[in-house]
Amino acid sequence: MSQFIPKLLCVLFLGLPLVSHASELRLLIDMLHENDMISEQQYDRLLAELEQNQQHAAKEKQQIVEKLELATQPSEVEVSAKGGLRISSTDGEFETRIRGRLMIDAADYDGAPQIADGTNIRRARLAWSGRIYRDWLFKLDYDFSDGGELKDSYIGYSGFSQARLRMGLMEIPLGLQYRSSSANSQLIERSLLGAFGGDRYIGVMADTKRQHWSAAAGVFGDDANEQRERNDEGWGVGARVTMAPFNHNNNVLHFGLASFYRHLNDQATLRFDEQPEARVAGFDIVDTGIIPGARTYTRTGLEWAVVHNRWSAQAEYMLSDVSRETGQDITFSGGHFQSGFFLTADSLNYENGDFGSPQPNQPLGEGGIGAWELVARYSSLDLTDKDVTGGEIDSLTFGLNWYPVPMLRFSANYVNVLNVDGGPNAGQEPRIFLVRSQWAF
Amino acid sequence: MSQFIPKLLCVLFLGLPLVSHASELRLLIDMLHENDMISEQQYDRLLAELEQNQQHAAKEKQQIVEKLELATQPSEVEVSAKGGLRISSTDGEFETRIRGRLMIDAADYDGAPQIADGTNIRRARLAWSGRIYRDWLFKLDYDFSDGGELKDSYIGYSGFSQARLRMGLMEIPLGLQYRSSSANSQLIERSLLGAFGGDRYIGVMADTKRQHWSAAAGVFGDDANEQRERNDEGWGVGARVTMAPFNHNNNVLHFGLASFYRHLNDQATLRFDEQPEARVAGFDIVDTGIIPGARTYTRTGLEWAVVHNRWSAQAEYMLSDVSRETGQDITFSGGHFQSGFFLTADSLNYENGDFGSPQPNQPLGEGGIGAWELVARYSSLDLTDKDVTGGEIDSLTFGLNWYPVPMLRFSANYVNVLNVDGGPNAGQEPRIFLVRSQWAF
Amino acid sequence: MSQFIPKLLCVLFLGLPLVSHASELRLLIDMLHENDMISEQQYDRLLAELEQNQQHAAKEKQQIVEKLELATQPSEVEVSAKGGLRISSTDGEFETRIRGRLMIDAADYDGAPQIADGTNIRRARLAWSGRIYRDWLFKLDYDFSDGGELKDSYIGYSGFSQARLRMGLMEIPLGLQYRSSSANSQLIERSLLGAFGGDRYIGVMADTKRQHWSAAAGVFGDDANEQRERNDEGWGVGARVTMAPFNHNNNVLHFGLASFYRHLNDQATLRFDEQPEARVAGFDIVDTGIIPGARTYTRTGLEWAVVHNRWSAQAEYMLSDVSRETGQDITFSGGHFQSGFFLTADSLNYENGDFGSPQPNQPLGEGGIGAWELVARYSSLDLTDKDVTGGEIDSLTFGLNWYPVPMLRFSANYVNVLNVDGGPNAGQEPRIFLVRSQWAF
Repeated sequence: MSQFIPKLLCVLFLGLPLVSHASELRLLIDMLHENDMISEQQYDRLLAELEQNQQHAAKEKQQIVEKLELATQPSEVEVSAKGGLRISSTDGEFETRIRGRLMIDAADYDGAPQIADGTNIRRARLAWSGRIYRDWLFKLDYDFSDGGELKDSYIGYSGFSQARLRMGLMEIPLGLQYRSSSANSQLIERSLLGAFGGDRYIGVMADTKRQHWSAAAGVFGDDANEQRERNDEGWGVGARVTMAPFNHNNNVLHFGLASFYRHLNDQATLRFDEQPEARVAGFDIVDTGIIPGARTYTRTGLEWAVVHNRWSAQAEYMLSDVSRETGQDITFSGGHFQSGFFLTADSLNYENGDFGSPQPNQPLGEGGIGAWELVARYSSLDLTDKDVTGGEIDSLTFGLNWYPVPMLRFSANYVNVLNVDGGPNAGQEPRIFLVRSQWAF
Repeated sequence: MSQFIPKLLCVLFLGLPLVSHASELRLLIDMLHENDMISEQQYDRLLAELEQNQQHAAKEKQQIVEKLELATQPSEVEVSAKGGLRISSTDGEFETRIRGRLMIDAADYDGAPQIADGTNIRRARLAWSGRIYRDWLFKLDYDFSDGGELKDSYIGYSGFSQARLRMGLMEIPLGLQYRSSSANSQLIERSLLGAFGGDRYIGVMADTKRQHWSAAAGVFGDDANEQRERNDEGWGVGARVTMAPFNHNNNVLHFGLASFYRHLNDQATLRFDEQPEARVAGFDIVDTGIIPGARTYTRTGLEWAVVHNRWSAQAEYMLSDVSRETGQDITFSGGHFQSGFFLTADSLNYENGDFGSPQPNQPLGEGGIGAWELVARYSSLDLTDKDVTGGEIDSLTFGLNWYPVPMLRFSANYVNVLNVDGGPNAGQEPRIFLVRSQWAF
Repeated sequence: MSQFIPKLLCVLFLGLPLVSHASELRLLIDMLHENDMISEQQYDRLLAELEQNQQHAAKEKQQIVEKLELATQPSEVEVSAKGGLRISSTDGEFETRIRGRLMIDAADYDGAPQIADGTNIRRARLAWSGRIYRDWLFKLDYDFSDGGELKDSYIGYSGFSQARLRMGLMEIPLGLQYRSSSANSQLIERSLLGAFGGDRYIGVMADTKRQHWSAAAGVFGDDANEQRERNDEGWGVGARVTMAPFNHNNNVLHFGLASFYRHLNDQATLRFDEQPEARVAGFDIVDTGIIPGARTYTRTGLEWAVVHNRWSAQAEYMLSDVSRETGQDITFSGGHFQSGFFLTADSLNYENGDFGSPQPNQPLGEGGIGAWELVARYSSLDLTDKDVTGGEIDSLTFGLNWYPVPMLRFSANYVNVLNVDGGPNAGQEPRIFLVRSQWAF
């Protein structure tokens, strides 16, 4: 309910004659008096009575107006249970949101090597976020799966025009697939590029999102679980810039560039490994093992994406340069290309730098069948360079997504590892059938 | 507030003459005109004035009706803080609930063997559940005690008539005492049959609850913490059916039958053990140790319960057949009989297949003393068969429950282990005095 | 909105003539009849018409009054998102609150010994508390940082006059700095006295808070994570009394005395250690190691605090007497004196026995710059006695606090360890620059 109602009400009432029935009666009385039908004394009594009743009526009307004003006063808070919970003060000063996501996976692994079939709670997250005193943001996010892990948890300031500054535990600004929520990736798992992505550190980050570009830059310490007594923790610095020359009405062209430099702590060891685009078994198919002497590394990523109504495509390429105290510097790399097509009249949801959750245009239960999407991806990852032979892998994944209503998703993926060169699992090419059921809001 | 008010309001108003004061005045004017008391010109002016004022009055009344309609519009959400938090949209499409339970235990162990007296936070749970788009259910439940553990967490569909289908982490459909919430068990801990019960696995389950019967069946993978690299996870399948030929006005007769088959993962070990109906010390009084060669096992349970106003009784019997790769197949068994009586005019709360929380008819602070219940139970468990000598135990437990108001419970139990034959604690019969304070909603 | 509105409305309306326009018309009709301007028959018709319309009008007015009553009915719940979430029933029977705090630290350690620079999520807490059936309290509090730990979680009864009784996991009643929330300590970390403080055990505690005094006493078992099989858990008993002869308008004089006796469990080991007033690195600068033969210990604390408008000072002194089965009894001691001064027109927030969060009088964004406070503290701790040489440390800490708006805090501390005598780090005096960003509500 708008808070402008009571004032409007007043104006309307005051614009009307306060006692509308009186004037014709007064006219009649005047006429009768004029025509000498009633005596002077009678006339005076009538006018007095009329006056008194007009005052009564005016008072009565005023009371109704006031009570109506009170009754139509807007609530001080707005409450929504539309997936999660959102409570906000109507003056825009305060907001509290409870959000979460649950992902239930099952996988069947075929071919060599023998990998464990099974089930997994991939994510079970509860996030509490909000706003206080208009400009200040807070967030606490936790994943209850696999023993529990703190996710994005910070304090922020959004009093700048379209930008925000945050301090706390946050994911680094790198890569389109990692900047988009895990709940919104087109295939069940992100690509093999996951070997280089998704770290969360404690730091300070500024970012902004506009219709045609976005930017983020931050400086970071170590992760939330790192607590060392003697050797300094590691640190890092990174930035990401994206452009979207076209971005309107489900027609998007996106480019992105990001780089992240990281200095390990003195005792830390560096290792890159990756599972074959399914995370039920916890089996790494490529794995550098501990890279001797590694002290710093720089990841650089290129992004491209396009959305044209039902159709979308994305590609990313990433380099990871490792600088070592002993031994030569080494470089790993990887990339993927993926494309999706909605069988229903739906589209990916570009959110100025990353992808949000698709909103089915015709939800199940409202005359539609939800949104259905076909996706294919080719990924490649090379973890072999110089003395480090982590292995090289190419993989093809096909997927079908069904979003019956917003916030719900059911997906089936078929992962076909094409080729594994070198590394601990050279020559072994598993195939995986993977399904996920998910709620996320 | 009902959403039918505004329409009703309209109808009532429209059924009335819109300008009620006018007709007698018009009548008078017509009479005076007829009697030639006023001139033709005066008559015309009066009618014009009357007409104008009638229009004004009609407009004014219309505005009041509209504002009242607005003011009596029902809220879009309903909010309740009556124990936990419940927010639902009035259209029935969305609901969010925050629930939890805390159980604080203290125990004094007497007799042999020496067992640790002490205190324990038995459960500290926070559960978030709800409904989106009318038919879809979600739940995330976590126990913060003892290092933390994910409990029932799923996605569900309830669009069928009286049935639901769920995917995720759930307790298996086995046993009356485990199908009823731990917050509602008549004695502080469930019986010695706990040795065979209460597993949670990731799977798919369908269930339905009717007044006179209930059914549940599911197929399951492994538990939420199991993540293997090489050996396939375990799996299981089970079903439970209950009947309640009598079920009305606190008079219930219940029968149940359930069976659950489980195939262990290739590396898993099977072990049955149980504490003496108190879980403060963590001391197992009977224990098979690892059963060599066990690969699959089948648990079969029979249930019986009766409620007659203040009085109730339950009995369960369970078999656990273990099939082994090496060595003979073995069978363990157990059962309990328990009976309770409310000293106050209260009754157990049968919920079509399991027991809910008793609702004291005369809460403390509203003229009553809450609900008081006396309970006794005899339990027996035999974990010795062939080459496996886990021990055989008989136990008698007495309890007093006080529910001062709904959602709160204070209980005192006296556990008397009657006999322990064989196994690691043969001949040792501890006695335990156990108290619990609990909130649960 | 008050629930007294509808009744008031009724009274006002009923006090007015129900059909106000009628009387002057009736008067006119009577006059015309009296003056023989209308016939007897006309007069009767007019009166009948008038009567009918009066009844209609009365009915119409009654309907408006009823609808207005309905529209101005007060809501059954009050909802606030002003930092966290608070939902309460307007009848005062039920309340649910979701609260939390996040503290993000970064530290730079200088001097000897080499200690790890870095970052830390110091606390990431979510607390759910409330009231049911007016008198019963519940709380569940969890810290998600550092792997997770259950905090104050209990069931309580507040039906006594100004006192409450609680059962569950609670902090012991000892020490002014530990009785005040970590979010409200004037310096980032509590003083070196932390070596003797802040334990949480499962127990029963009664407490009361008045304007001029407070008292708390409890008996406790062991902590929430302790679960022993054979040896009895430890237990303790303690009490704290405070007086505030002056306590009004930001002028406070506070004295306190507390003592806590603890009996260790049979296998437990006792050890006192402490970090140098920063908890990023996890490095203990003084450390007794395991004290051989310790079975019980008694901590006794003296408190003094004064607030005079912008200025405040506090001092605490604590003794820890350890009684041993083998070897002589030993005594450790420590104390601190700290003083703060607000640069802005603000004051510490004394809450009848401890300190709450300062509420900036002139928040940022409302014409002010928030609250700014300077603080200095001298701390001393002696963990060396007889055969135990944990070390003796003196330390000086300076701090600046900025509270831009309520619930937010940014602090910078400079910790200067003056002297370390004996113990594992004898002669090493680190200096630490420490910053914290925090939201807490």
